[in-house]
Amino acid sequence: MSRKQTKLTFDKPLVLDSGAVLEPLTVAYETWGTLNQAKSNAILVCHALTGDQYVTGVHPITKRAGWWDNVVGAGKLIDTDKYYVICANVLGGCMGTSGPQDLKPDGKPSALDFPIITISDMVRAQAMLIEALSIDKLFAVIGGSMGGMQVLQWIATFPDKVFCAVPIATAARHSAQNIAFHEVGRQAIMADPDWRNGDYLAQKTFPSKGLSVARMAAHITYLSDVALHNKFGRKLQNREQLTYGFEADFQIESYLRHQGQSFVDRFDANSYLYITRAMDYFDLAETFEGSLTKAFGAFEGAACVVSFSSDWHYPPSESRAIVRAMMAAGVHVSSLEVETDRGHDAFLLDEPVFHIALSGFLQSQAEAKGI
Amino acid sequence: MSRKQTKLTFDKPLVLDSGAVLEPLTVAYETWGTLNQAKSNAILVCHALTGDQYVTGVHPITKRAGWWDNVVGAGKLIDTDKYYVICANVLGGCMGTSGPQDLKPDGKPSALDFPIITISDMVRAQAMLIEALSIDKLFAVIGGSMGGMQVLQWIATFPDKVFCAVPIATAARHSAQNIAFHEVGRQAIMADPDWRNGDYLAQKTFPSKGLSVARMAAHITYLSDVALHNKFGRKLQNREQLTYGFEADFQIESYLRHQGQSFVDRFDANSYLYITRAMDYFDLAETFEGSLTKAFGAFEGAACVVSFSSDWHYPPSESRAIVRAMMAAGVHVSSLEVETDRGHDAFLLDEPVFHIALSGFLQSQAEAKGI
Repeated sequence: MSRKQTKLTFDKPLVLDSGAVLEPLTVAYETWGTLNQAKSNAILVCHALTGDQYVTGVHPITKRAGWWDNVVGAGKLIDTDKYYVICANVLGGCMGTSGPQDLKPDGKPSALDFPIITISDMVRAQAMLIEALSIDKLFAVIGGSMGGMQVLQWIATFPDKVFCAVPIATAARHSAQNIAFHEVGRQAIMADPDWRNGDYLAQKTFPSKGLSVARMAAHITYLSDVALHNKFGRKLQNREQLTYGFEADFQIESYLRHQGQSFVDRFDANSYLYITRAMDYFDLAETFEGSLTKAFGAFEGAACVVSFSSDWHYPPSESRAIVRAMMAAGVHVSSLEVETDRGHDAFLLDEPVFHIALSGFLQSQAEAKGI
Repeated sequence: MSRKQTKLTFDKPLVLDSGAVLEPLTVAYETWGTLNQAKSNAILVCHALTGDQYVTGVHPITKRAGWWDNVVGAGKLIDTDKYYVICANVLGGCMGTSGPQDLKPDGKPSALDFPIITISDMVRAQAMLIEALSIDKLFAVIGGSMGGMQVLQWIATFPDKVFCAVPIATAARHSAQNIAFHEVGRQAIMADPDWRNGDYLAQKTFPSKGLSVARMAAHITYLSDVALHNKFGRKLQNREQLTYGFEADFQIESYLRHQGQSFVDRFDANSYLYITRAMDYFDLAETFEGSLTKAFGAFEGAACVVSFSSDWHYPPSESRAIVRAMMAAGVHVSSLEVETDRGHDAFLLDEPVFHIALSGFLQSQAEAKGI
């Protein structure tokens, strides 16, 4: 099916955490299914760092299935015959929502003049969209990885606007190791002379090599050591023996190079800088007097916290910290640590234990809500 | 103290695993202590990827202490009053041993015309040095990380020339995840236009930015998540609050940038490519009909295998595989998994449990040898 991009541009400016004012604010989003009369069946899906609003169906650029096509759709786990599913491209993104590609009044791309944004800014932009769609309260907010950060921020900032929350494979703050990996990626982009101090759009270049290296480094963190071993091990790529050269002798090298190269076809380098920075800055407790329990204190809905045993990017220990704080705050929280060797990316894959649990949670919440 | 670089250039060529012939072969090395009359007190220390022959004392370039200054020296654990300690810069290195900086007959640097080398090639070059020093049998071969790979290769290739072996924080083959990280580093170097397809020496440039990014990515793997958390956490660098920009707000960013920048002052980009490639190619069992036990079958000495609990670069499971194969081969092997949160770099640090065990092992072996 062909799909026209849906966008809303707001009259009201968005005041960012940095103090900067974003005006005009545009939010690009997709929806599936129909909002019921009671407006009680809306699910907001929040995407990860390199995700976008094209959750399901054919992606307009890659022509491949959306990033959660296995979970969201008619008759699927998040059933678009039953729910009204919304996903917005995050603030700072490169799929239509306001970001460093936005033109300044002088007609030039904002590039590094675009203000630094935070996870909280992303969520407040989404809240403006939800309000514009005339939805008072979301049935559910669901997301993995950076999407999970947004879920946590939603119930902290807008506790009354969420019936239930599903943060998956995420953390309430970005660890030193994760900041370190992001910094490597940013330095790789900035080291590329085609980055032009951020001004590559105006100068008609693109830092493909730097962005590709950034993606390669990040991609390693999305997979577990065991998954890499099982999938690739030391297997050679289309050859019988080592070539004694710097070609991609090993399948893992070939795979990583492909990941890097295909990424630059669909993602923007400055967006990568801005969104990784937003993740680095995320520390939910910090904005609630150092108490994660306080962050969740006003939320009266239910939550389902999911982690994956071999995820070393957002390890289960991070989810346990979230669960502890939610319990202390009196949130009705279910939690699940899925045994899998597929690492962080498990949240995108067919993991039966995860899917059965998520399905049960949503079903019970839908019954409670009377959907 | 000032120290003149010691080098040996051999008349005999070195036939490499690739089939290429290296001629002339030069090996740069350092020694400490005195070889006894029986020539029975020589310890060969093997250095890691970014190490060099300047094990102890003042490093001639950085002017800081050598990389194992806390372990090697007069009266120290590896006592240079008792032992004759030798360390050679590895083949492919940039501290005087033959590598991609070598000049070709036409007077230009070899750059990518330098042949691909392996861990086995490194060890055979070291064996030529040991022979030139008139040593028939080394008392011990000791090394961590890539140094440990050389130790394993030594007892596989020259089982009669080693009395005891100490492979530390290492593996008998390079994992898919480690190949992946190396590939990121190589792509970062090659993406730097100042790399000039390897020809930067002739063209008087240097791929500093690419090499710096490579080092940053690798450095993360040398530390544990917990070590990063304890050392840096989310602490800010010389500021009270976030700057909402791309400066190094966090200490971990500042630290990583410093690691990258200081590395380019002392290391060569092409050497980094060649040595990482040698590590990727390392799979000791593969050269012994797929059997690690066979690789250790002819070694009649003792071994002490050391790993560190939080090392995810060369995790304890890799050491356990080595120990199992050694036991199956009838090697008298002691093994130690040190509980520490300092990650891979623990092998360079003051880890009392490790040092006490290493000291005891060497002492008992010295007694057995009658030193």
